[in-house]
Amino acid sequence: MPAKYSFPEASQDVVSLLKQSPEELASALARLHPVDRAIIFQGLGEPEQVKFIQALGPAELGSLLEHLTPEWRTAAAAKIPRDKLAGALDAMTSDDAADVLQVLPDADSLLKSMRSGETVKPLLQYKPETAGGLMTRGFIEVRPDMTVGDALALQRTTDVSSVEVYYYYYVTTPDHVLEGVANVRELLRADPARLLSEVMRRDVVHVPPNADQEECAHLVQRYRLRALPVVAEDGTLLGTITSDDIMDILTVEATEDMYKMAGVGIKEWAFSPLGESIRRRVPWLSFNMAWAFAGAAIINLFTDTLDRAATIAIFMPMIAGQAGNAGIQTATIVVRSMALGEVHLRDFFKLLRKEWALGATKGLIFGTTLGLIAYVWKGNVYLGAIAGTALFLNMLVASTAGVMLPMTLRRLGFDPATIAGVFDTMLTDFMGFLIYLGLATIFISQIAK
Amino acid sequence: MPAKYSFPEASQDVVSLLKQSPEELASALARLHPVDRAIIFQGLGEPEQVKFIQALGPAELGSLLEHLTPEWRTAAAAKIPRDKLAGALDAMTSDDAADVLQVLPDADSLLKSMRSGETVKPLLQYKPETAGGLMTRGFIEVRPDMTVGDALALQRTTDVSSVEVYYYYYVTTPDHVLEGVANVRELLRADPARLLSEVMRRDVVHVPPNADQEECAHLVQRYRLRALPVVAEDGTLLGTITSDDIMDILTVEATEDMYKMAGVGIKEWAFSPLGESIRRRVPWLSFNMAWAFAGAAIINLFTDTLDRAATIAIFMPMIAGQAGNAGIQTATIVVRSMALGEVHLRDFFKLLRKEWALGATKGLIFGTTLGLIAYVWKGNVYLGAIAGTALFLNMLVASTAGVMLPMTLRRLGFDPATIAGVFDTMLTDFMGFLIYLGLATIFISQIAK
Repeated sequence: MPAKYSFPEASQDVVSLLKQSPEELASALARLHPVDRAIIFQGLGEPEQVKFIQALGPAELGSLLEHLTPEWRTAAAAKIPRDKLAGALDAMTSDDAADVLQVLPDADSLLKSMRSGETVKPLLQYKPETAGGLMTRGFIEVRPDMTVGDALALQRTTDVSSVEVYYYYYVTTPDHVLEGVANVRELLRADPARLLSEVMRRDVVHVPPNADQEECAHLVQRYRLRALPVVAEDGTLLGTITSDDIMDILTVEATEDMYKMAGVGIKEWAFSPLGESIRRRVPWLSFNMAWAFAGAAIINLFTDTLDRAATIAIFMPMIAGQAGNAGIQTATIVVRSMALGEVHLRDFFKLLRKEWALGATKGLIFGTTLGLIAYVWKGNVYLGAIAGTALFLNMLVASTAGVMLPMTLRRLGFDPATIAGVFDTMLTDFMGFLIYLGLATIFISQIAK
Repeated sequence: MPAKYSFPEASQDVVSLLKQSPEELASALARLHPVDRAIIFQGLGEPEQVKFIQALGPAELGSLLEHLTPEWRTAAAAKIPRDKLAGALDAMTSDDAADVLQVLPDADSLLKSMRSGETVKPLLQYKPETAGGLMTRGFIEVRPDMTVGDALALQRTTDVSSVEVYYYYYVTTPDHVLEGVANVRELLRADPARLLSEVMRRDVVHVPPNADQEECAHLVQRYRLRALPVVAEDGTLLGTITSDDIMDILTVEATEDMYKMAGVGIKEWAFSPLGESIRRRVPWLSFNMAWAFAGAAIINLFTDTLDRAATIAIFMPMIAGQAGNAGIQTATIVVRSMALGEVHLRDFFKLLRKEWALGATKGLIFGTTLGLIAYVWKGNVYLGAIAGTALFLNMLVASTAGVMLPMTLRRLGFDPATIAGVFDTMLTDFMGFLIYLGLATIFISQIAK
């Protein structure tokens, strides 16, 4: 029975070894999984981190940097002597080395002292959130006139650390134009004497280097790929994106959408420093507050009405809030469905019709409920009718806004998640107060008796 | 240059072939990627779907079912003659065949007529959202005394369609107890005469069959695995989970959290039928409405105060709303951080301290702003001071609720995303009205001048 990783105990060991016997530290660290080393590192104080780094060889340092989050990578890299760092970068996969170099001030001089500098350098020209920024250069490239047997034998002669994607063989012309692909199973099943051109598949799903990372994730998920090649406009194979990077994107993109809907900074996490959290949350709340004053100005228009019957104020927050929540339900579904590629801009009217029907139904259910309760509670049929009608109409506002806001934002090139939720609440507050207090003003003589 | 998949055109072709020349349909469908076939199928009407199914052979039907969403799978399976369906199930990976069988009324008789019935049957005992429910039986199992060369030769003799995970070799005892693992690269690099026991790695990250799918996803992502073996308590290897299933889980879990925060049914998507959307959204809005009446009851306590100065009502929604939004920011970060495994229950007090500091800061900023504006606008220093203080205090309520609600729900074994967002808004409404109107009542003689 194989041992299960035992993370918490290992962490204890390392912390005590850092204090007691630094000489045993290196061998204790070598026994750990790289991911666990990275997690332990992130939990240490500054002086312990320096000791920790000293105990690691270049390959272990490389795997440490590879498994740290981007913020930690920069901080850790700054603590490593430059010659040792160049060795560590050589030990990393090319895409991760490029990610680290992208945030270092002395990337140019490091590239020159790296053995794999020439491989990594081309990756630095692409934006991190594009296919080019995600791809690795660690793939196997072969010619169509190579035999299956020779291709398989390549696994013995190539450097393991430089080949990340070992299960696909990319078949290219001498100019590196992608012609086809074969996986290692297909080669193992084929006659070793056959040529790759006879064995390879020619229809390869691929992306251009400027493709958005979300689009890459959709393709990998849709076609259940293990790697997604990145191909330039002239057909040149530039690199390939691995499925583990795609998993990270799926997680990050989902977190982003969720945080944006709630108006939280996308780079924030639970234990971000206080100052950072303030900087990230206050702007959105300020925007919110400014809009809330617009709502307050609406109420202010009707203080005479409220003066004549304060009872009206009781149902004011409910009419705004209930529709606001209904609008957020709609907006959330629209935003997420667009992110997953299930809904497109061309579906606008179809979706609007559906949400209107839904809004009218919800409006009838909750408008009638509110109307009846308000009537029974306050003994005034006009108040009941007005509150119920206002909620019904505001539900239609919510449906319209829930569909229109995210889709309009997408149409205009903005991220639909960013402000759809806020705008929606603001609009339902605004319209809720206006409709309800407006109707109440018209019928005030019937309410204030 | 390989052709890029051309989905929209293919879809047009199929739709017109369905109408004009059904005999050419089969060959047109055979040229399409299985995923695209599934997407086209989902866009067809009932009679076209039946024609579509008739044009597919068992293997193509299997890949169709495999790529349909669960709801569509059940509907499509019902349209297929039983003998053809058994053949299609045989052509599917064992985990997908099990998923389809799980929703069919006549699963037992189908299992008996399936060639792979014995392989698939054990998978039916596990819940779909556990490791057991996710795992496939399509892996390569070998003995430790087999040579590397013989192991590689297995790729030639085993049935391709029955082996989904071809890049890992799981080494087990004759009782199927997992002893180690080797990937195909390690075997290709090793001397073919060596024994697997000498080449395999013994520390294999694995999960028990009842492990939650979210836990499986964390492990795969954390250790960047391509497959995660499922091992029974006695060490028996039961199956393995592939990374494409993990990607689907990451997507589904993120959508779930997001939808639950917004109070949307987790099985809903943008074009769910109207009736289904109503059934899924109305219960949550009803709950919301019930709570809103509690808020209304609070306001009702203070109608005398509002009668004396209707101006007070102007700032009421803002004090509740601004704190409600701040609380949702906090709750969203806590829920998502717990889902990603970045925050644990033991971090409760640390997180609460941080969010209190943050809440106090936000409260000072926005409380002061509101206080000053209210004072200048309405020319009443008491009204300004009361509104500002109420917002400050309600921000502290929001911070407390944003941390306590999701963590308490998790502690009690509930899903923290389910109702954290709603409760948070309700609590800030409730407390906002109570604090603001309470303070206004105490100082009413200073406000109503």
